[in-house]
Amino acid sequence: MLPIQKYCSFCGNEVVYKFAEGRNRVVCEHCNTIHYTNPKIVVGALSVWEDKVLLCRRAIEPRKGFWNLPAGYLEDFEKAEDGAIRETWEEAGTDIEIQQVLAVYNIPQANQVYIHFYAKLKDGIVRNGEESIESALFSEDEIPWNEMAFTSSAFALRHYFEARKNGNIQTYLGTYPEK
Amino acid sequence: MLPIQKYCSFCGNEVVYKFAEGRNRVVCEHCNTIHYTNPKIVVGALSVWEDKVLLCRRAIEPRKGFWNLPAGYLEDFEKAEDGAIRETWEEAGTDIEIQQVLAVYNIPQANQVYIHFYAKLKDGIVRNGEESIESALFSEDEIPWNEMAFTSSAFALRHYFEARKNGNIQTYLGTYPEK
Repeated sequence: MLPIQKYCSFCGNEVVYKFAEGRNRVVCEHCNTIHYTNPKIVVGALSVWEDKVLLCRRAIEPRKGFWNLPAGYLEDFEKAEDGAIRETWEEAGTDIEIQQVLAVYNIPQANQVYIHFYAKLKDGIVRNGEESIESALFSEDEIPWNEMAFTSSAFALRHYFEARKNGNIQTYLGTYPEK
Repeated sequence: MLPIQKYCSFCGNEVVYKFAEGRNRVVCEHCNTIHYTNPKIVVGALSVWEDKVLLCRRAIEPRKGFWNLPAGYLEDFEKAEDGAIRETWEEAGTDIEIQQVLAVYNIPQANQVYIHFYAKLKDGIVRNGEESIESALFSEDEIPWNEMAFTSSAFALRHYFEARKNGNIQTYLGTYPEK
């Protein structure tokens, strides 16, 4: 569900919800503005150091206390990979080097498209960022699968470990929930 | 540049532009709402039939009369690949089967992130869609490079033809303008 827009953000008059440009949209009939809305991009990074992967334990709701790949909304005028670098810095206080696109992952129910990158840590030092209780490096058999915050991260991890065995990381395209 | 928001879309009062959650944002101090804004996702498809690629000649501004890959804004609650299928239908009246993610391409100046898919036409028949003067299939040496509408499409085409020679299409990550 989207929050319900009641007023035109340009002229302040009440808007209506009606068919415009192919579907129902929020329209201001006073200043003739169609208020387009679109899915949001969430960017994240699966970052590795030797054979280990960086995870952070969330200090904020939702899913406080659960583990996650650093990720968050892409900001205006930001490059997708720069958003993943920023989120990793905010959550784990560590610098990464982006290697490639790991996954594009739709969560239509949340009106989100995830872009996860595969990255390498510049050094093996991880800190507690502003938004994390804890940051740590996990080998494949140490991953706390039952304490993962979001499906998107568990999915990216599984894809990475599988691809690593094949020696070739292809970008994965997926959707949650799967049908 | 973003359009300037003057009023709160929830309560109709005037908003201010001030520092909130890490950067300057539009904030309503009457109903305490931060109006987050984010880059928009543009989805498109490079679709092939035998050794040929589908291009459409734009019937609308900007760049009316120039050739382009079918592409457009992703709609609310739409999966990225479904958006590319829809745009291809709207612009060329033909069905495609998505194969993989071809490119993620930032255009930060336009506050856009492009996700281009590599797809196959279900049949070799292309039509003039609502938004096209003309749709056609081009082999590599027939591509009208000097009549392309947008850099994003020319870029995706170049990446595809290069990858095809190598027999392995890896997802490309790029930014325009390149620095």
